[in-house]
Amino acid sequence: MKFDEILLEHGGGGRLSNDLITGVFLPHFRNACLERLEDSAVLNLGDKKICFSTDSYVVDPIFFPGGDIGSLAVHGTVNDLAVCGGKPLCLSTGFILEEGFGMKDLKKIIRSMSEAAALAGVSIVTGDTKVVPRGAADRLFINTSGIGIVDYKGSISVKSIADGDAVLVSGTIGDHGAAILTRREGLGFKSDILSDSAPLNGLVEKILKTSPNIHCMRDATRGGLGAILAEMAQQSGLTISVREQDIPVRDDVRGVCEILGFDPLFLACEGKIALFCPADDAQKVLEIMKGHEYGRNAAIIGTVAAGKDQGRLILKTAIGGSREIDLPLGELVPRIC
Amino acid sequence: MKFDEILLEHGGGGRLSNDLITGVFLPHFRNACLERLEDSAVLNLGDKKICFSTDSYVVDPIFFPGGDIGSLAVHGTVNDLAVCGGKPLCLSTGFILEEGFGMKDLKKIIRSMSEAAALAGVSIVTGDTKVVPRGAADRLFINTSGIGIVDYKGSISVKSIADGDAVLVSGTIGDHGAAILTRREGLGFKSDILSDSAPLNGLVEKILKTSPNIHCMRDATRGGLGAILAEMAQQSGLTISVREQDIPVRDDVRGVCEILGFDPLFLACEGKIALFCPADDAQKVLEIMKGHEYGRNAAIIGTVAAGKDQGRLILKTAIGGSREIDLPLGELVPRIC
Repeated sequence: MKFDEILLEHGGGGRLSNDLITGVFLPHFRNACLERLEDSAVLNLGDKKICFSTDSYVVDPIFFPGGDIGSLAVHGTVNDLAVCGGKPLCLSTGFILEEGFGMKDLKKIIRSMSEAAALAGVSIVTGDTKVVPRGAADRLFINTSGIGIVDYKGSISVKSIADGDAVLVSGTIGDHGAAILTRREGLGFKSDILSDSAPLNGLVEKILKTSPNIHCMRDATRGGLGAILAEMAQQSGLTISVREQDIPVRDDVRGVCEILGFDPLFLACEGKIALFCPADDAQKVLEIMKGHEYGRNAAIIGTVAAGKDQGRLILKTAIGGSREIDLPLGELVPRIC
Repeated sequence: MKFDEILLEHGGGGRLSNDLITGVFLPHFRNACLERLEDSAVLNLGDKKICFSTDSYVVDPIFFPGGDIGSLAVHGTVNDLAVCGGKPLCLSTGFILEEGFGMKDLKKIIRSMSEAAALAGVSIVTGDTKVVPRGAADRLFINTSGIGIVDYKGSISVKSIADGDAVLVSGTIGDHGAAILTRREGLGFKSDILSDSAPLNGLVEKILKTSPNIHCMRDATRGGLGAILAEMAQQSGLTISVREQDIPVRDDVRGVCEILGFDPLFLACEGKIALFCPADDAQKVLEIMKGHEYGRNAAIIGTVAAGKDQGRLILKTAIGGSREIDLPLGELVPRIC
């Protein structure tokens, strides 16, 4: 698809994001590292392998049930490093503040970032602050970039996903998206749904210690589990089949989705990973997940197959049918992260 | 000073920026690396020493004489790494785009980033794109973060500045600020002033190869040469004296400053460094600078002294007087970089 202007969907982690990256960014920034299109770049540096990742956070509202833009900015980048097998080492922060933004709110956000960083065991080692005139930005945006150390022997990459792999998810999906939705102005929902925003590096470290055979991990943020699985199916050229009734969804999240007409499969998470490993390892990995506070509701949800229908994501529905899931055009909820 | 809200000056690289960093950010993000308050963090990583830096770019206009927000975003972070003695290795990019931003302009900016990166010899290895609804951001903001390798044996730091050091500047000051000013809506200036936005890693590499005694370098961006020298005087606890008539300023930049009532000392540069080294090395370093395309107008502009008036910046005026230069409150021109 060709567009003369940027649409909201170009930032939504779906098909238009993909088009923008592969059609506009990649042709200019072409290099092997970027072309892998994983959540972090992996680089050799002397005797070490490091990963390097960046994300800007524009979430609205900036304070939401279960977190705020500050903790989210730490968790998001920590998780992008972790799913590439990196032990997060340090973060940078770049603040863009709107003139007139309240100092009290800024302090609250900084405190929350600092607590999130301490919990994840990373240091914020460098930063930058810009202020733009009133109206030139909506309150504040935060960029975090991070460096991690990759010790894992296996190659964690979408290219490592193999025929016969099991697909796991580390917990209930859509919590973050539902928490944001219920707080959007005008919706006036009463609910207790908290964002699942959390640092997953501890969980990932435990998994990697347990199994030398982890093929790929990705955190399900924009576009939810559905978008990342559809993207991974495309990138791997394999068929990913998932069983709808095995995908964990909180009852209240399902309720919000029913009222608003959303599918939890495409609702953002901020503390959940999808993981691919050989079927023989799946049970062991599941148990590790279930033993960790951020993996209690983990489940084995599907399998990978080569053969026809390559590069597709198939959902086996609860009533016994099968339907192909396309990469959504964009994110259902703008400014979700 | 205490404020309830963020002012434009909090992002201006002057006194209020300083207050924000030391009063709000540092108490929460406290760690040895961040507290150095240099342009990059320097970290040991296995057998290597690396530096890590981040900057967000919000410049207005996004296309200006001599560059655009894309090339600026590459040069700025490359230079922050270079002045800490780092050979820039790779960059990340984080785009925040306003819904409706023109695809043509985006492509132009990406092309310019890609060319700037190639010229500086760095790869853009990872990235992120967010889109916010119309009105939530002014067109686009770009964050770049970067990693560099530090090979230099000496310790390049404001703490290394010593009594008797010479102060050098790598060329004419205020070009970027003047170029932006002349293009601001409403001013209607006609001028040929180009921004000096340039990658300085090549120049710095040559300098570091020539002299093992470089004590400190910093690029003079927001707040101009005046702000960074005043800040370095404060941080080092030494007195920096500079001779007004030795500071290179283009005639047309001086002209714009006279008309608008600005002091070129506080006008932003984007391709100039201030450098501190022992007086005995100054002539040699000056010649290296002058032999490089980005240092042709370099000059030795002052000296460092211990003793009374500690932590101050003194300007020896052309007519023989002396005046103390305070760290300005903020940047004269909002959204300068």
